[in-house]
Amino acid sequence: MPQYTPPVRDTRFVLEHVVGLDRHADVEGFANATPDTVDAVLEEGGRFVAEVLFPLNQIGDLHGCTRADDGSVTAPPGFKDAYRQFVESGWGTLSAPEAFGGQGMPHVVSTAFQEYMISANMAFAMYPGLAHGAIAALVVKGSPEQHAKYLPRMVSGEWGGTMNLTEPQCGTDLGLIRTRAEPQADGSYSISGTKIFISAGEHDLTDNIIHLVLAKTPGAPDSSKGISLFVVPKVMVEDDGSLGARNAVTCGSIEHKMGIHGNSTCVMNYDGATGWLVGEEMKGLAAMFIMMNAARLGVGLQGLAVAETAYQNAVHYARDRRQGRALTGPAEPNEKADTLFVHPDVRRMLMEAKAWTEGLRALCLWGALQVDLEHKAGTDEERQIAADLIGLLTPVIKGVGTDKGYEIATTAQQVYGGHGYIREWGMEQYVRDARIAQIYEGTNGVQAMDLVGRKLAQNGGRAVQALFRIVTEEIAAAKSDAATADYATRLERALNELQAATMWFMANGMKDPNNVGAGATAYMHLMGLVATGLMWLRMVVAATALKTAGEGDAAFLDAKLVTARFFAERILPDAGALRRKIEGGAEAVMALPEEMFLAA
Amino acid sequence: MPQYTPPVRDTRFVLEHVVGLDRHADVEGFANATPDTVDAVLEEGGRFVAEVLFPLNQIGDLHGCTRADDGSVTAPPGFKDAYRQFVESGWGTLSAPEAFGGQGMPHVVSTAFQEYMISANMAFAMYPGLAHGAIAALVVKGSPEQHAKYLPRMVSGEWGGTMNLTEPQCGTDLGLIRTRAEPQADGSYSISGTKIFISAGEHDLTDNIIHLVLAKTPGAPDSSKGISLFVVPKVMVEDDGSLGARNAVTCGSIEHKMGIHGNSTCVMNYDGATGWLVGEEMKGLAAMFIMMNAARLGVGLQGLAVAETAYQNAVHYARDRRQGRALTGPAEPNEKADTLFVHPDVRRMLMEAKAWTEGLRALCLWGALQVDLEHKAGTDEERQIAADLIGLLTPVIKGVGTDKGYEIATTAQQVYGGHGYIREWGMEQYVRDARIAQIYEGTNGVQAMDLVGRKLAQNGGRAVQALFRIVTEEIAAAKSDAATADYATRLERALNELQAATMWFMANGMKDPNNVGAGATAYMHLMGLVATGLMWLRMVVAATALKTAGEGDAAFLDAKLVTARFFAERILPDAGALRRKIEGGAEAVMALPEEMFLAA
Repeated sequence: MPQYTPPVRDTRFVLEHVVGLDRHADVEGFANATPDTVDAVLEEGGRFVAEVLFPLNQIGDLHGCTRADDGSVTAPPGFKDAYRQFVESGWGTLSAPEAFGGQGMPHVVSTAFQEYMISANMAFAMYPGLAHGAIAALVVKGSPEQHAKYLPRMVSGEWGGTMNLTEPQCGTDLGLIRTRAEPQADGSYSISGTKIFISAGEHDLTDNIIHLVLAKTPGAPDSSKGISLFVVPKVMVEDDGSLGARNAVTCGSIEHKMGIHGNSTCVMNYDGATGWLVGEEMKGLAAMFIMMNAARLGVGLQGLAVAETAYQNAVHYARDRRQGRALTGPAEPNEKADTLFVHPDVRRMLMEAKAWTEGLRALCLWGALQVDLEHKAGTDEERQIAADLIGLLTPVIKGVGTDKGYEIATTAQQVYGGHGYIREWGMEQYVRDARIAQIYEGTNGVQAMDLVGRKLAQNGGRAVQALFRIVTEEIAAAKSDAATADYATRLERALNELQAATMWFMANGMKDPNNVGAGATAYMHLMGLVATGLMWLRMVVAATALKTAGEGDAAFLDAKLVTARFFAERILPDAGALRRKIEGGAEAVMALPEEMFLAA
Repeated sequence: MPQYTPPVRDTRFVLEHVVGLDRHADVEGFANATPDTVDAVLEEGGRFVAEVLFPLNQIGDLHGCTRADDGSVTAPPGFKDAYRQFVESGWGTLSAPEAFGGQGMPHVVSTAFQEYMISANMAFAMYPGLAHGAIAALVVKGSPEQHAKYLPRMVSGEWGGTMNLTEPQCGTDLGLIRTRAEPQADGSYSISGTKIFISAGEHDLTDNIIHLVLAKTPGAPDSSKGISLFVVPKVMVEDDGSLGARNAVTCGSIEHKMGIHGNSTCVMNYDGATGWLVGEEMKGLAAMFIMMNAARLGVGLQGLAVAETAYQNAVHYARDRRQGRALTGPAEPNEKADTLFVHPDVRRMLMEAKAWTEGLRALCLWGALQVDLEHKAGTDEERQIAADLIGLLTPVIKGVGTDKGYEIATTAQQVYGGHGYIREWGMEQYVRDARIAQIYEGTNGVQAMDLVGRKLAQNGGRAVQALFRIVTEEIAAAKSDAATADYATRLERALNELQAATMWFMANGMKDPNNVGAGATAYMHLMGLVATGLMWLRMVVAATALKTAGEGDAAFLDAKLVTARFFAERILPDAGALRRKIEGGAEAVMALPEEMFLAA
């Protein structure tokens, strides 16, 4: 049976030494995040998800969701009761604004908890996860009336929330949306159209579901500039807050998917449903991006979180399973065979998983810190740097986090040999679940294009220069200490490749924008290497300093140093290959006539 | 709905210009392989699999196999009738020895057909596929009586065949086998034990199934040197060839797997089943390797074959689906959006898939040629070179073919965006099916260890030197022609990395064998790049020569040249990164104490 233990010790190390939680004590909300409070969140929250949500993970996969003929959807066995406990415990309200009943904790702290929740049960975590995106959009764009009507019960988890963007003919290209919103005499709109791939679109966990829906008003232009955002409750909410009539929105079917079976992915039919404009007409895209950016960071976290559980189980299996002998002679001569752990290629797989999961954990939490600082840091400059960094890093965290998440889940499955392919062992579910994260909330190719086509050049390249400055400064500092110089020098090599690739884009993108597009994915991964490499640099510096001071758990700190070395020797070398691929440019990518792709 | 068209034009190009079928006309069996005959096999065989087997692929995935309480197993709807047609058409007997009812065609020709069959329906292809391994072992190790009794009806496909190696406690490490074989007075053995993961172990496609089973005789040593191979028919075969009593072997259960649902993966219980020794007692490992090597090449082919179907569908989808606009401005201004084909990152994905599938097709067929030459070439020297090459390349074809196969299937699924995750579209099945090929018949880590721990040093490195010589000579020849020099120079760079990595192993493997083990997988992929790169070099040389001569289909030849350039610019650069990873050595891989792998 699969196991899961929240990696509290590692999270704590990252919050303390990479994120530097105490260095931001003057930022709003951070005073709430005392070491004791954070410890309580990690320990108690971790225990809750491990004990209540993780045991439902395989059940959710096996049973999936069920739609009845009336369009109602039932979540897998146990989900409803677990959701009730989740709401009662308040774990979903950590970083929500206190004005709407939240606990006002830093986003970085709730992100640490989110990781555990996804690790325990990704499909379950998506129910409140999607609501968070809807909440984020309503907080910023909603009217005071909408705030009062919806937010307290969405924040508490009493009601669910969804994001309705995709239609059969339109995924990435939201200009193609056909859902219409007709204004009514009372100021509401009548919404009609079909939305697909709506996660948590219909279920029995909550009494109401607040749908945020992209649609076009009459005469709106036929592009993404014509989109407006509407709030459409499943059940009408009366002015006194009581639930009224059922709105004309129904689940037409639920999808049969590769994974995340425990979450209901719905086709939603809007048949003249009553909705209200959120923010301004035809400014829906900006509102959508508020939801979307939050969701993208959450999806990057999914990559890491699923990989973490898969990795933990691979470690347990490698310690238990005996097969073959160490190359250097029997490690345990009294046993019939040694454990998988003696085999260097098995260790190589586990080290890759460890180096990436710990590196991505730091990157996700450092990214979450920027979300806090973007809104709450003390100075304009700090807020701008944070906004620049998170704008730049969002596609990297989403794209690299999920590509590596899938890769690690696959690697962890590989450690199990044949048993990894068998459903009961649980490993193949992680691979199937992790796979969606590379696709939804903008495919990873879309992330890469967002990075190179939008974020890189924005404000004269201010964001990427800010990142380069941070990495350069921290490398220089680390090079001045003999104990950290080797790692810093290796990271510097990767940084040089990234800078050279950036220059290549600048020199060649004007000639042909396809030169940038053709290298987009490679560039995203190159930046992911450097950003994750920066996280490892911070861990190396912190571990070295603690060891010198005789503080901390020496075995844990040594493990950090070994894993950083593995990251430098075995993962960073990809930087050179990625740069060379980028410099290949567009020609070989674009030259082939369409009809020649099939060799038949 | 998914589509599949056998890539006949490409196969023909490879057989003619990479494999050089006509250059081996004096080899036994090759005289049968006239261009007309080969064309007929490719065209007619391709049509058969596309029309009869491919329509059952999704059905097989959806329905799976069903085991009744009596242990009988029913294949998915339609499989039995399709199997009957397969046997009647004779497509399974192409390269089987004429002495046993086969058509005596070269293995390389039947391999070309095998690819199509797997592309059409991998789970179906495994039924006759597993029988082929059993046939190969019986042909070499079986007695004349066993030949007469079993082979004609196994070759015809009237009976199935299986390979029974794995047990719950023993996968890679066959020394741990517990299945016992007790000699009986009549010269037979009584076989008792449990075998797991037995593909096609029980089904309703054939009247009999001939199991080849590894077991230990009394007093046999507790290692792989104590293993013997036995033939155990499901139904006893009387001396007159008629079917007798049911043997004491039953299917205890069928596994719930991630994919290949159409093939029954069985737990097989041997309860004093009657079996007969195949070959000598305690020489079972050698017999097993005959089955295994054939199976490994077949599994490598599975990687390519599933990737091919996934790729074809991704091309169709990218041509049909309209989303967004070209970076260089609308390609089709009269449409609401351009097709996915205009987006460089989509093309990048498709080109990666094309470059790998065509390269691996050539490599699989060139490997298959070595199997022919190993046994049938005219001189000792030719046979030895072929044997060396295929020994070296078998783990590369299996390991790299299936790692890339899975990667390409995943990439093709990615082209579909959200639809790729939905079962009805068919793409996620290819990913789930392709996944097993990295695991079974020896995990890819085991392949890598076979390559670096066994094949590399065998006979003083004779095999790897033979490969280096071929690649070096063909590069030198191609560099002397301006039209092919650029590609050759890029391949030479990758060859240099491979040679340097090989030297590094020689210099550092003696100090610590883990230095070799820690780099095994990277080395396997590095050799895969060079071997596939050699295939592309041959295609470049052939396409260039044909164009110069004004022969062949110019568009097809141009496509080869563009795809080769993509391979050189976008795939070969990985060679440098792989070498650097190898040179990282064992330290960072082996340093971490077991108990420090979990950060919790």
